[in-house]
Amino acid sequence: MTDNSWYHGNPLDIDPERIQIRRVIDVNDRFLRDITIGQGGKANGQPRQAGFDIVAASELMAILALAAGRDSLDALKNLRARLGRMVVAFDRQGTPITADDIKAAGAATVIMRETLKPNLMQTIENTPAFIHAGPFGNIAHGNSSILADQIALRVADYVVTESGFGADMGAEKFFNIKCRASGLWPAAAVMVATVRALKSQTGKYKITPGKPLPPELLAENPDDVYAGGANLSKQIANVRRFGVPVVVALNAFPDDKPSEIAAVRAIAKAAGAVDMAVSTVFADGGQGGLELARMVIAAADTGHTSPAFLYPLEASIKQKIHAIATEIYGADDVSFSEQAEQQISTYEAKGFGNLPICMAKTHLSLSHDPALKGAPSGYTFPIREVRASVGAGFIYPLAGTMMTMPGLGATPSAQSIDIDADGNTIGLF
Amino acid sequence: MTDNSWYHGNPLDIDPERIQIRRVIDVNDRFLRDITIGQGGKANGQPRQAGFDIVAASELMAILALAAGRDSLDALKNLRARLGRMVVAFDRQGTPITADDIKAAGAATVIMRETLKPNLMQTIENTPAFIHAGPFGNIAHGNSSILADQIALRVADYVVTESGFGADMGAEKFFNIKCRASGLWPAAAVMVATVRALKSQTGKYKITPGKPLPPELLAENPDDVYAGGANLSKQIANVRRFGVPVVVALNAFPDDKPSEIAAVRAIAKAAGAVDMAVSTVFADGGQGGLELARMVIAAADTGHTSPAFLYPLEASIKQKIHAIATEIYGADDVSFSEQAEQQISTYEAKGFGNLPICMAKTHLSLSHDPALKGAPSGYTFPIREVRASVGAGFIYPLAGTMMTMPGLGATPSAQSIDIDADGNTIGLF
Amino acid sequence: MTDNSWYHGNPLDIDPERIQIRRVIDVNDRFLRDITIGQGGKANGQPRQAGFDIVAASELMAILALAAGRDSLDALKNLRARLGRMVVAFDRQGTPITADDIKAAGAATVIMRETLKPNLMQTIENTPAFIHAGPFGNIAHGNSSILADQIALRVADYVVTESGFGADMGAEKFFNIKCRASGLWPAAAVMVATVRALKSQTGKYKITPGKPLPPELLAENPDDVYAGGANLSKQIANVRRFGVPVVVALNAFPDDKPSEIAAVRAIAKAAGAVDMAVSTVFADGGQGGLELARMVIAAADTGHTSPAFLYPLEASIKQKIHAIATEIYGADDVSFSEQAEQQISTYEAKGFGNLPICMAKTHLSLSHDPALKGAPSGYTFPIREVRASVGAGFIYPLAGTMMTMPGLGATPSAQSIDIDADGNTIGLF
Amino acid sequence: MTDNSWYHGNPLDIDPERIQIRRVIDVNDRFLRDITIGQGGKANGQPRQAGFDIVAASELMAILALAAGRDSLDALKNLRARLGRMVVAFDRQGTPITADDIKAAGAATVIMRETLKPNLMQTIENTPAFIHAGPFGNIAHGNSSILADQIALRVADYVVTESGFGADMGAEKFFNIKCRASGLWPAAAVMVATVRALKSQTGKYKITPGKPLPPELLAENPDDVYAGGANLSKQIANVRRFGVPVVVALNAFPDDKPSEIAAVRAIAKAAGAVDMAVSTVFADGGQGGLELARMVIAAADTGHTSPAFLYPLEASIKQKIHAIATEIYGADDVSFSEQAEQQISTYEAKGFGNLPICMAKTHLSLSHDPALKGAPSGYTFPIREVRASVGAGFIYPLAGTMMTMPGLGATPSAQSIDIDADGNTIGLF
Repeated sequence: MTDNSWYHGNPLDIDPERIQIRRVIDVNDRFLRDITIGQGGKANGQPRQAGFDIVAASELMAILALAAGRDSLDALKNLRARLGRMVVAFDRQGTPITADDIKAAGAATVIMRETLKPNLMQTIENTPAFIHAGPFGNIAHGNSSILADQIALRVADYVVTESGFGADMGAEKFFNIKCRASGLWPAAAVMVATVRALKSQTGKYKITPGKPLPPELLAENPDDVYAGGANLSKQIANVRRFGVPVVVALNAFPDDKPSEIAAVRAIAKAAGAVDMAVSTVFADGGQGGLELARMVIAAADTGHTSPAFLYPLEASIKQKIHAIATEIYGADDVSFSEQAEQQISTYEAKGFGNLPICMAKTHLSLSHDPALKGAPSGYTFPIREVRASVGAGFIYPLAGTMMTMPGLGATPSAQSIDIDADGNTIGLF
Repeated sequence: MTDNSWYHGNPLDIDPERIQIRRVIDVNDRFLRDITIGQGGKANGQPRQAGFDIVAASELMAILALAAGRDSLDALKNLRARLGRMVVAFDRQGTPITADDIKAAGAATVIMRETLKPNLMQTIENTPAFIHAGPFGNIAHGNSSILADQIALRVADYVVTESGFGADMGAEKFFNIKCRASGLWPAAAVMVATVRALKSQTGKYKITPGKPLPPELLAENPDDVYAGGANLSKQIANVRRFGVPVVVALNAFPDDKPSEIAAVRAIAKAAGAVDMAVSTVFADGGQGGLELARMVIAAADTGHTSPAFLYPLEASIKQKIHAIATEIYGADDVSFSEQAEQQISTYEAKGFGNLPICMAKTHLSLSHDPALKGAPSGYTFPIREVRASVGAGFIYPLAGTMMTMPGLGATPSAQSIDIDADGNTIGLF
Repeated sequence: MTDNSWYHGNPLDIDPERIQIRRVIDVNDRFLRDITIGQGGKANGQPRQAGFDIVAASELMAILALAAGRDSLDALKNLRARLGRMVVAFDRQGTPITADDIKAAGAATVIMRETLKPNLMQTIENTPAFIHAGPFGNIAHGNSSILADQIALRVADYVVTESGFGADMGAEKFFNIKCRASGLWPAAAVMVATVRALKSQTGKYKITPGKPLPPELLAENPDDVYAGGANLSKQIANVRRFGVPVVVALNAFPDDKPSEIAAVRAIAKAAGAVDMAVSTVFADGGQGGLELARMVIAAADTGHTSPAFLYPLEASIKQKIHAIATEIYGADDVSFSEQAEQQISTYEAKGFGNLPICMAKTHLSLSHDPALKGAPSGYTFPIREVRASVGAGFIYPLAGTMMTMPGLGATPSAQSIDIDADGNTIGLF
Repeated sequence: MTDNSWYHGNPLDIDPERIQIRRVIDVNDRFLRDITIGQGGKANGQPRQAGFDIVAASELMAILALAAGRDSLDALKNLRARLGRMVVAFDRQGTPITADDIKAAGAATVIMRETLKPNLMQTIENTPAFIHAGPFGNIAHGNSSILADQIALRVADYVVTESGFGADMGAEKFFNIKCRASGLWPAAAVMVATVRALKSQTGKYKITPGKPLPPELLAENPDDVYAGGANLSKQIANVRRFGVPVVVALNAFPDDKPSEIAAVRAIAKAAGAVDMAVSTVFADGGQGGLELARMVIAAADTGHTSPAFLYPLEASIKQKIHAIATEIYGADDVSFSEQAEQQISTYEAKGFGNLPICMAKTHLSLSHDPALKGAPSGYTFPIREVRASVGAGFIYPLAGTMMTMPGLGATPSAQSIDIDADGNTIGLF
């Protein structure tokens, strides 16, 4: 709709170099990341550099996860309003052009109206679970939908909701973005840890996706757990900062050693966690989570927690970024590129200054730099660019390059998927 | 998968300039017709000119409509085999590379296996109808699926199946491609005509999509019906050529005049049709089709028809094209561009010479030229290019430029779609 | 300058899809034929499909060859005026935008002012020769400059000027375009022929650039000379049509046989040539051209010739094209593509209808089709597209695809060019 | 030649994403900075992202300026050898491919052989001056040619050669790159300063290209001269570091105040300069430079200076970069991007580690950051990317984005260039 408005006489004076919306498609196709569209003559549009993202990286997904209301009609209207506010482009004078301006928000609402309804799934032990919305944790807020939480709260005594991509990303955004939008606040937090992850936070081990773990990582080594534990301590402190009791769930592996598990518990308690439970849910199903469940219930029942946001919305964009970078990530200071400075000025001038911040950074470190392990400090956190998801309702600064369209490997799994002689599907796993 | 194989070391020596498969997406987006993909550095692939088509224009759709078997497993295997034969590229020596060669056909089968099941819909009078598969009539065969026909034949006394895009396109391909693949043969043919269409076949009226019809087209004028009727006569003769009785269904409009309807009947009978029925189904529902239905039943019950193909598969590609162009379209001769000549040589050398022909031409004329109305003759039918849908199982010569991705107008319908204050969807119609 | 005006606010409302001017560069670089420019963000322009031509294919070269005047100042002003009239683009309403509109013509004149001065060279026998301007014969008029002819006429008794790319192209354009612009008219025409070329006009021999000639072409065969001679006869008749006496210069090769040379003379005389001379200039220098020179002087002194153009400028564009195609090329009729029809309408509406025609067609046949040898007749000459070189002062219809940027072979000559141990340049020949 | 080798079967296994050579053309054309070439099908090459630079930014220009020899033949051979060593691409295994590998260096030598001869110009007072070679000071070494210096030294008592783009860039590269290549060493250095430039080094004034200077910059203010003089002091110390006496040439402007000129002299002397001369050459011609000339002669005659390079060639690439950044630019440390690290490893592995360093940075600051004025210290100098000009003979690390193709403004000078009624060129100045 945006390109089409530009094509047909451009009545809104869209600046083609500042179209904000990328096309989305759920394929694994690196060739679509950076493309030139509209070639081959006037009938085919006008040339422009563009690209495709996967759906999870679309602002539409972030909007879906944050849409909420008193009832289903109210939620639908909230969806409609958010879609209408999406900034799809800027005109040549720098004024934002919204989905409402190009008259696309109504149709988008109609297309998405069924997606508002959470999927009710069940675990293999028949416990109900809502699976609803998947906003990318690196560029969006990485949390399940508010609507699913609201529905769950009406039908269950205790609701567990996931906030992904590390507590520095998922939990911080959960509190400052999702809880602000929903008006809900958790009674307790569960922080998942593993022995091997804490060891790897020492920075001593080279871990490559798709390759086996280094064997020395699996040898008994409680000292490494203590050394890498700085990361867990900082994450616990970060969540405690929001006034919520923390239970650490140790996701146990067969080769975890008692000395190492003890080290995790010691770290957790020292950092202010209520306690640590060993979870063997992967191996033992629900039985393996009983200790954890009892601990969480106890923590949740302990007492009342009340919203303690990290920053007020009225703070300037730079102040808000500074608060996250220094208090959550451990940075000393924040630097802003010239481009980021200009974008922040534009957003504040256009009235987007009061939105919360949704940081786009790596999940491989508390900092912006995947190589900085443990609990880094004394560094400057760099903001390269700042974007606005006005429909979702947040500003997202970029501290690095985020990949929003995956690519296939040399031997894609699709190569082994087929039907067998009886017509059964094979090769999916 | 094809681009990915080219990207990861190109083990099959794919010639990137001869990748045959375009990406598909069901949007209305002219900007995607002609694009350059794989830009922005090595991580994003390798630059190549490519484009998107809508799904109906994909060989996958043509395959779905032609897949058939004794039972559902057999049909699934037939789908699998056809997908595997799809030619996705040529290597640098000119050898075809198939979907099986790039190991994509198994996964494609798994993705498409549910699509094999026809959709059972109903009319507003509750008559069951299968809606299944929509291969483009200009570049593919434009017929409903064989599977839906096979299922329908098991549950109904009479099955009506549609073959779209003019009898010169839809019916010819129905007989020579679909009936060959299904082993079925119709008992009768219904040819739909309108008074206004026959008048417009005089070439005297300028009809523009999206504009009102010229008023003089709607004035009583049986002479014009007779003049434009040459088109109907030729179409009836063409279908009679396949040995099937033809009933003409006059799709009546309120402003049709008795003198004009009489003219159509006279033309139909003179051309060898069994009879003509006036259909008012649009206005009167099933009641408006009773005369037609009785006529069709009578024609179908008349006697046995047996396959009379226009050409044997063993004929050369050029002979088969020649047969269609001269016997169905009324051309004197066929010309082949240099490119077409080379492609025909390649296909015959690679063993695709025995496939039937699926002509890609305009539906606005019996010829290749939309300006030639009525029953043109004495012209040379030009073949610009020849492609092969080996999975679907046909060669498709191009006599013109076919548009396989639509574009939005200056005021797309999406602009008026929205929800109202009660959350109801509005603006769809 | 055109792209820059589009980029900086587009005050002239340039339609980027209708920019007429391609960049030029004198390299041999197929990669520059079809490119997308202006990528990489706003600082780098705006994306647009464009391309490079070599300089000979630029309208600037055609302008240089046609610029003329009473004296050098007058010629400079004529150059200035022609440059100013160049149509560099159309605006969105279809109005032509000229080099004067974008204020580029003055600077272009200053850049080109020294090029107005012909290069005075000499043959290896020290005869002076002007080498000046090289407009492509397939898309422009393929003649040396008017200015060089004018200067030569002041200092020599007889001036020979070349008009390249076959008499059907070069001579026709010489008369109808160059002579109209210069006000000069030749006293005689020299038509160059070879025995082997006439044999090849039978269409019996397969000649491939870069490969040795087929040996059977070189065997004595006067019958083939007679058979292929239809081409020479038609070319002589064509030039005679302009009222100018024709002398045929047989460019002799060592393996020409007396019987074959006699055949050429017989054909020439039968077609109305004054006579034929055997030229051995390549082997014998000036001595080898004495017979020819005497014959040409005699013909030139015979009497007065006066302008007899093929068509009046006031004829419609289609009439002028029709005259060339039927009277010079031997076609029965001319067909115009829809695009060509529209362009002709535009040019006539914009006041370019009175320009002469500069046909862009192959030099390998009297017709548009390289495969039609001899003197083809009974065919339709197809016009695919029509362009206007308003600065040069002609309309150029395209009957085929013209290559305006060459490409290197697998072993470019550059590979063998170098310096030797003494610093001498080697490998140039 | 590189693209052509890739196109014709790619016998050297050129990695198209790692072609190092950009095309060059001397136009002012932002649209050519970032382009996609080779589009439109196989005959037109293969798609690839590429771009044009101006000639001054080409490695060929840097090579020309550094080519040298005992005599003209020796210099020609040196040119030939340097051209042959140019790395034009890498293959898929990461091996460098040179101009000799693609057999392009011989032809390039022949094309450039005449450019080896310096242009002898004269000043308006008829003093001879060589103008020869113009390598970009931001990405190359920004110095006049060695050949011109060598010739000048044979014919003059004193030779002044220019090294542009600030002493931190031009002088450092003069000593470490050009003097190493020529074997020459200067007897004295002239450092040019202006009152207004030193004031602007306070960072208090906003100076915008194309806009008038702020009036307050021109008011008498010796304090600002002292404050900004830190820059001059550092530059003098930097040149003194190479063992060469420095004379400061104050390029006087009419509005310079005596108090300010005195401040410059005080700064210069305090920093170790021999003295400062006021130069009014712009206003008074040669007479205005007499004081400066006498001072330079005296300094040059003072005594013997001998090569004192900043770093040995045998140091690692990182050590050499570190030496320049800390000793010349005042940085505390150097950071290397991941890409830079990889490139350095590649170059050292491929044997390019012993080349001198040619830093590509802004000329607006002693640091990499145009906003850091005066003599910045305590910062980290960031290396984003490292390239190799192996033919020219240096490694060039990039500390920022360098523009290598200019663009026209909204009102290009070309718009006012024209001929007048008498044919004279107007509008050049």
